[in-house]
Amino acid sequence: MSDKITLYELAASDGASPSPYVWRIKLALAKKDLRYESRKIGFTQIPNQFDGQFRTVPIIDFGDVQMNESFAIADYLDAHYPDRPPIFSHEAERAMVGFFGDWLAGSFFPKLLPVYTLDVHNRAAPEDRAYYRETREKRLGRSLEEVVADRAERLPEVRQALAPVRQTLSAQPFLGGKEPNFADMCMLGAFIWIGTVGTIPLLAADDPLVEYAARGLAAFGDATQPLKLCLSDPAQG
Amino acid sequence: MSDKITLYELAASDGASPSPYVWRIKLALAKKDLRYESRKIGFTQIPNQFDGQFRTVPIIDFGDVQMNESFAIADYLDAHYPDRPPIFSHEAERAMVGFFGDWLAGSFFPKLLPVYTLDVHNRAAPEDRAYYRETREKRLGRSLEEVVADRAERLPEVRQALAPVRQTLSAQPFLGGKEPNFADMCMLGAFIWIGTVGTIPLLAADDPLVEYAARGLAAFGDATQPLKLCLSDPAQG
Repeated sequence: MSDKITLYELAASDGASPSPYVWRIKLALAKKDLRYESRKIGFTQIPNQFDGQFRTVPIIDFGDVQMNESFAIADYLDAHYPDRPPIFSHEAERAMVGFFGDWLAGSFFPKLLPVYTLDVHNRAAPEDRAYYRETREKRLGRSLEEVVADRAERLPEVRQALAPVRQTLSAQPFLGGKEPNFADMCMLGAFIWIGTVGTIPLLAADDPLVEYAARGLAAFGDATQPLKLCLSDPAQG
Repeated sequence: MSDKITLYELAASDGASPSPYVWRIKLALAKKDLRYESRKIGFTQIPNQFDGQFRTVPIIDFGDVQMNESFAIADYLDAHYPDRPPIFSHEAERAMVGFFGDWLAGSFFPKLLPVYTLDVHNRAAPEDRAYYRETREKRLGRSLEEVVADRAERLPEVRQALAPVRQTLSAQPFLGGKEPNFADMCMLGAFIWIGTVGTIPLLAADDPLVEYAARGLAAFGDATQPLKLCLSDPAQG
């Protein structure tokens, strides 16, 4: 099959693509060696696509079908491109990666986002900032500036929340074992996101996750080539 | 192969077997349909076995080798009984179940244990209680009674910590997908532990995890037959 694939990414002010969910799909497309056309859109342009049926990116257009939920997209890629490397090798792996995604979204992101929400705002396209501020301040119940005011003090707790990831990676190079799997794509997507927009380093210089992120980006080669991430404290000399 | 297997379990005061790590192995042995001889020992008897090389249960004796780390035991069972149903179907599943185990041990148990540590003490064999109290109070920096004093107020946070499990199980009957896998054995082991010793219900009556626990115990049939768990608030009439 060689259907045309179009990926709607989030556009930052400088053209960067700062969305963890977009990145896990960009890495999944790289894993399957699928070419796609990229369209960068801002937060406020999402409702203008496909009759407003989607509220988040990535939106992926396979021609006959459009979808925006990352695990559904991964399943679709495996079902429709079975001759290419599988994203999920086995039903039980798929199920457990689902738990990882639920942990990331339900336990880690709620700790992470308040630290970086003003950074996301400041890096958004200028015409998106008022929308981003209004929706997030409503959700968080405070101004973005108030939310991030004590973020340096909260950073240790955010780093601590990654302890299970660190523990798993103490025994193997990737969450998926010897090779990265979709859980790694999800984790790396989050690191790419924060490493792109963050103005306070998510990781300490001696955190083994710094090497993990570098190893992961290298594993996806060209797909991550233009990225320059600011993810960790400068190493102490 | 039909080597003799001996499982050293933790003995509570009334003969119950209240250890989450023992239970995940009892369920793994059931999954592989392996018979074993059970020996119940108290906390203070652990160092008396096998020249004191182990500090925790389960200890499992395969005749030529003894081990006590649950994932290593699961790997051993798959390697040495390949003609029986596999505990891990694929390397990537094994890797992701490892993350689940790390999350359980590193993120969930530290929230769970302070709520139930006095219950564990009170249910321990009488000759073990002084040892349990001394080691745990040293670790926790307070008396067991002080640790549990405000446990009712902390229970909502413990329940909330299970949100990713709940989320995953909203889409599938088991963490492993359609059938329970070793992640389910780990989760069910924790529920059996708390449901055996707990004197304050871990789960609300309408928590979908109540049905999950019942479904999981049923899936392991005879292995869980004698259990009567106190896991949830009484349902409201």
